[in-house]
Amino acid sequence: MSDSSQQASRRLPEGAVRRLLTPRAIAIVGASATPGALGAAVLGNLTRNGYAGEIHLINPKRAEIAGRPCLESIAALPEGVDVALLAIPQAGVVEAVRELAARRVGAVVIFSAGFAEAGEAGLAQQREIARIAADAGMLVQGPNCLGGIDYRQRLPLTFIEVAISEDEAERHRSQPAIGILSQSGAMMTVLNTTLASRGLPLACAISTGNEAASHLEDYLDYLLDDPDTAVIAMIAEQFRQPQRLLALARRAEAQGKRLILLHPGRSSAARAAAATHTGALAGDHAVMRTLVERAGVVLAETLEELGDIAEIALRCPALPSAGTAIVGESGAFKALCLDLCEALELPLPTIGSADSPALREALPPFVEVSNPLDLTAQGLVDPQLYRRTLEALFEDTRFGTVLVGLIQTDPVTCRIKLPPVLQAVRERRPALPLICAGLDEGAEIPADYVSELRALGVPYFPSHERALRAIARLHPLATRDSGRVPPAAHGLALPEQGGVIPEYRAKQLLAPLGVPFGAGELATSLTEAQRIAARLGGAVALKAQAAALSHKSDVGGVVLGVEGETELAQAWERLHQDLARLAPDTPLDGILVERMGAAGCEMIVGARHDPQWGPVVLVGFGGVTAEVLRDVRLLPADLTPMAVRRELDKLQGAALLHGHRGRPACDVNALAELVAALGALMQAEPRLVEIDLNPVMVYPEGQGVLALDALILIA
Amino acid sequence: MSDSSQQASRRLPEGAVRRLLTPRAIAIVGASATPGALGAAVLGNLTRNGYAGEIHLINPKRAEIAGRPCLESIAALPEGVDVALLAIPQAGVVEAVRELAARRVGAVVIFSAGFAEAGEAGLAQQREIARIAADAGMLVQGPNCLGGIDYRQRLPLTFIEVAISEDEAERHRSQPAIGILSQSGAMMTVLNTTLASRGLPLACAISTGNEAASHLEDYLDYLLDDPDTAVIAMIAEQFRQPQRLLALARRAEAQGKRLILLHPGRSSAARAAAATHTGALAGDHAVMRTLVERAGVVLAETLEELGDIAEIALRCPALPSAGTAIVGESGAFKALCLDLCEALELPLPTIGSADSPALREALPPFVEVSNPLDLTAQGLVDPQLYRRTLEALFEDTRFGTVLVGLIQTDPVTCRIKLPPVLQAVRERRPALPLICAGLDEGAEIPADYVSELRALGVPYFPSHERALRAIARLHPLATRDSGRVPPAAHGLALPEQGGVIPEYRAKQLLAPLGVPFGAGELATSLTEAQRIAARLGGAVALKAQAAALSHKSDVGGVVLGVEGETELAQAWERLHQDLARLAPDTPLDGILVERMGAAGCEMIVGARHDPQWGPVVLVGFGGVTAEVLRDVRLLPADLTPMAVRRELDKLQGAALLHGHRGRPACDVNALAELVAALGALMQAEPRLVEIDLNPVMVYPEGQGVLALDALILIA
Repeated sequence: MSDSSQQASRRLPEGAVRRLLTPRAIAIVGASATPGALGAAVLGNLTRNGYAGEIHLINPKRAEIAGRPCLESIAALPEGVDVALLAIPQAGVVEAVRELAARRVGAVVIFSAGFAEAGEAGLAQQREIARIAADAGMLVQGPNCLGGIDYRQRLPLTFIEVAISEDEAERHRSQPAIGILSQSGAMMTVLNTTLASRGLPLACAISTGNEAASHLEDYLDYLLDDPDTAVIAMIAEQFRQPQRLLALARRAEAQGKRLILLHPGRSSAARAAAATHTGALAGDHAVMRTLVERAGVVLAETLEELGDIAEIALRCPALPSAGTAIVGESGAFKALCLDLCEALELPLPTIGSADSPALREALPPFVEVSNPLDLTAQGLVDPQLYRRTLEALFEDTRFGTVLVGLIQTDPVTCRIKLPPVLQAVRERRPALPLICAGLDEGAEIPADYVSELRALGVPYFPSHERALRAIARLHPLATRDSGRVPPAAHGLALPEQGGVIPEYRAKQLLAPLGVPFGAGELATSLTEAQRIAARLGGAVALKAQAAALSHKSDVGGVVLGVEGETELAQAWERLHQDLARLAPDTPLDGILVERMGAAGCEMIVGARHDPQWGPVVLVGFGGVTAEVLRDVRLLPADLTPMAVRRELDKLQGAALLHGHRGRPACDVNALAELVAALGALMQAEPRLVEIDLNPVMVYPEGQGVLALDALILIA
Repeated sequence: MSDSSQQASRRLPEGAVRRLLTPRAIAIVGASATPGALGAAVLGNLTRNGYAGEIHLINPKRAEIAGRPCLESIAALPEGVDVALLAIPQAGVVEAVRELAARRVGAVVIFSAGFAEAGEAGLAQQREIARIAADAGMLVQGPNCLGGIDYRQRLPLTFIEVAISEDEAERHRSQPAIGILSQSGAMMTVLNTTLASRGLPLACAISTGNEAASHLEDYLDYLLDDPDTAVIAMIAEQFRQPQRLLALARRAEAQGKRLILLHPGRSSAARAAAATHTGALAGDHAVMRTLVERAGVVLAETLEELGDIAEIALRCPALPSAGTAIVGESGAFKALCLDLCEALELPLPTIGSADSPALREALPPFVEVSNPLDLTAQGLVDPQLYRRTLEALFEDTRFGTVLVGLIQTDPVTCRIKLPPVLQAVRERRPALPLICAGLDEGAEIPADYVSELRALGVPYFPSHERALRAIARLHPLATRDSGRVPPAAHGLALPEQGGVIPEYRAKQLLAPLGVPFGAGELATSLTEAQRIAARLGGAVALKAQAAALSHKSDVGGVVLGVEGETELAQAWERLHQDLARLAPDTPLDGILVERMGAAGCEMIVGARHDPQWGPVVLVGFGGVTAEVLRDVRLLPADLTPMAVRRELDKLQGAALLHGHRGRPACDVNALAELVAALGALMQAEPRLVEIDLNPVMVYPEGQGVLALDALILIA
């Protein structure tokens, strides 16, 4: 079994993460009294935060540190300590892990770098650590990590300075909290600081480093079991257990927990750089994105967004859904929001006086009912306008989210505008998310207003731009099509041997599933070809068939539009001559003689089984131009035809499908059915590595589609 | 003359804005003693900020206000007061303006709304105000504006509360400052607050409202004359004097001043909404954008960006240029930056140990020389690492900008990391922009570090994301091609009458300029056509010619690939039959008989003279698919062929031009020459409204281009 498939199936012993994070006894290997030393920082953290369990210090050179006795070696440890923190140089790590396993320690946290990320020697050591951990049933966190922190227990298993007061811990405990999981230790500390500064309750923060023997997925599993963790913010460059991650994500969604993911390394340059710093090999970002989103994970594009999305997901009573209502105080702000929402593809339902009696009544006559709403500066004169407006919007079923953008100016202005906003929320407790944004970043807004907003479940943002961006990221989750097409009832009668299945065989296999192909037959002689062509009638295509010929047209293996016996004979001759020259020694199964398909809108439909993530389907425009412009969508394999149609509308060239310039509209239903059928098949037949239908001609509405070529690759 | 062309040519009397902003005598029409009233707020602002000039109060109902005598009417004003602030209801505004003009007042500021933005009646009143102002040579600011503030003089000509201490004024005076110009009053106050909160020196802030009789361009002109204003941040939905704006922008660039523009209303939804709130009709955003960028204006996409860009433009010693170097402390951060810069198209030069001896020496052996640079957490142990790294980068000519992204964590950590950064800047005074960003937004960074960074010309950003976005917006300005193609030496011999010029005439006109067309001639009889075809040899195209037939192929007016006398006779017959049926009563000039052009890469080349903004050219992919995908670039008409080539590379389908899938590379030089020639012509010939060359076939390198069709529309 390969290294990566071992990792993919690896499971920690039951309760291992719980034991790590609720330790009754902790050992510090390499405890130190030298200020600034790793072993001193780790010990300082535990004492500063009032850790009440046993602490065992190991330092062969000292009898005691800060009044605590030191053990001379790991061998002197009592059996069954829950956690050992390794504050020792890289060189001693493997041996220490071995000795700790012998003392039946529950978990080891390895801070040291210099393993898989540093080259072959380090990688070998890391594998040895993984082996020891697996044999002993011991959890190893890291190496090359910053450990973790449990905020509710005031438990710092790290060397970065941590100081959590009992009051703060109480705040973290008193309400549903955010869990932080990051492969990068640096990013974990960044996220800790920034989320804490927003007054967000934190459950714990875990950095997983090189993931030698425990993975982000293990800690995620633990946090999903924790009833007080409602949102999990993740920073991961690579998932080592993709299928488990998807299963955990689906479980999270069923529990109503939100997973937000920042995935550094989607760009080609970043992928090239990744290998050198955590030993991670980034998977296919597009496939990952498609499938984790399908499983309910929200993807953040930037660090800023990760925090912004997590805050909304935690504080708001529901996900932002349906249309967004925006309340502002200026026409230019309205225009800015319209611009931004168009770019973000965030729907803003259009409203007017006629269809909004409650809103019309809430507003003065000179304020037009619209979305975004421009209250003008009238709120300064009539502050209750904010309350009346919000109350009307809270009851308006056309909206799933409300954003209020306020010009804060100074504390005096805030004291006019914010109380009626707070009053509306306090009295009506809206079921939809309300988000409050200041337009003038840096304005002095009294802190108690911000904290009162937060206490009422209203996130406060320093700009409407960030709020709208975060809403736009969450919006698809709440509004997506939850229907799923199940795996096809029957798989395919695939040959035993893996590899390319040539077109004629692929067509024979796929046709029974309803994939429409042109009429045709395999010919092994000119006479046979002429007989087939005569039966088909009209012009035919000749296509050489062999597993080794997956790009048959590049070697002269395709002749199109052949009509009549003479022309067929000539084409037959030319085709065989070209093949003999350009693809010699390629034994042919025969020549496929097929009725020429009519021209239509040229699309490509495909499917792929990603070895890590599973099946995806693909649909987009074919032809050279569209191919270069890459106007395609990668989709989960279980989308319903209706959801596929919605995705087709997101193609840049969607207009081509809907009757561009007076042409008839294309049969998008037939196209969507084909894509969904292929998805169902991919789910049912794990040996399918790749299917390519290129081109697929789409004909006018009601006239269906026709796949002109087909290629299957099987494992 | 139309309303808008009057506006476009309108100029204020010499010195009018200066008189408004340095008034020795101010009148408040509608002065009030009632707290909260407009007339009280205006007066309170002047006294609170120690205005030392004359103040004349006009209130028929009171003898005095706050110890100052009141005049009964405007008629009682002494002649020649510099500024009158109108704190009266809308209904009395026009009459007051008339009376103030009679008293030879220099400028009137109208806060009231209810004019052009409120409908026909208001628009008529606004026109009357403009007429009075023009006749009297009086400046009118607004209506529907918030007035303005001069920060250096502590001068508030507004009702929004202003309190500028003498110390603050001194700070605004002591260094080059930012001027704020906004059509929206609300956005002006937002920008005032947010820029001031960043410690940025402000010159003045002006809101222009409905711009009845003074435009943003007037105030911009004034600020360009002001030696202490270095950057001007503008929020404008519509420019009423586009040509003047472009000229001012070019002047600003020549002076080394930076103009940053936020233009709300680029989206279709925003354009629909704009008409209702400031009476502004947004022009063509894409043309505006193309030409103002060419004139050196930086466009911000959001309010946040506007402030971010303005801060860099003001504080840094130079514009961000050449490649950007990024210094960070984690591998995940590096990957995030690579992702973001790829999306922003911001170049990050690749570097390595071999080509970077100074950097190699500055870094510990285990830190790889790369960009972004990952210093790891080593800076905590060896803080001078930051200094050494920056010093090496300051001297590295491959870079035009340096961004340092720091994990701030807490004041203790900041005190380790920031001093060596400050030291490097203090000692080396880098000539390139250095920008410092905190990764963990909300971390407590001691304020004196931020102010010291700023004092040294180093902007501090709360996230690397915002810093990179702002750098990416400024970068093209510093790196663009400054070459200009002058107007063509000769115009065209255009017919006197405006309208469509049919293909054969358009080709006759354009051919002498070097636009390559296929050989052909106009035929008025079948015999003539046959003679022409025989002379051309090979297949020909027949194309019906008439000014009224600009879409000739839609009515059967085009037959392609006609070969031989018989075929020509048939085609001739069919063409005339179709035209008789589909375009009856269209007198033809004749039938153009043209040699068929070979197929090539199908492009579209065009040009347009925007009535407000001037000439632009357009180039992109032709054909139905590319047309729907709108893969075109809109360009200034004075780009050099080299700059056009660079723009061609930004087309999504650029690969098609460079020999996609083994095809020969296209003759992009010939294409670029054609685009530049068209631009030169557009500059020389103002009567050209539109030129369309569609399609233009581009052939393999060295084989040139061929325009198959041509259409000219003239004024």
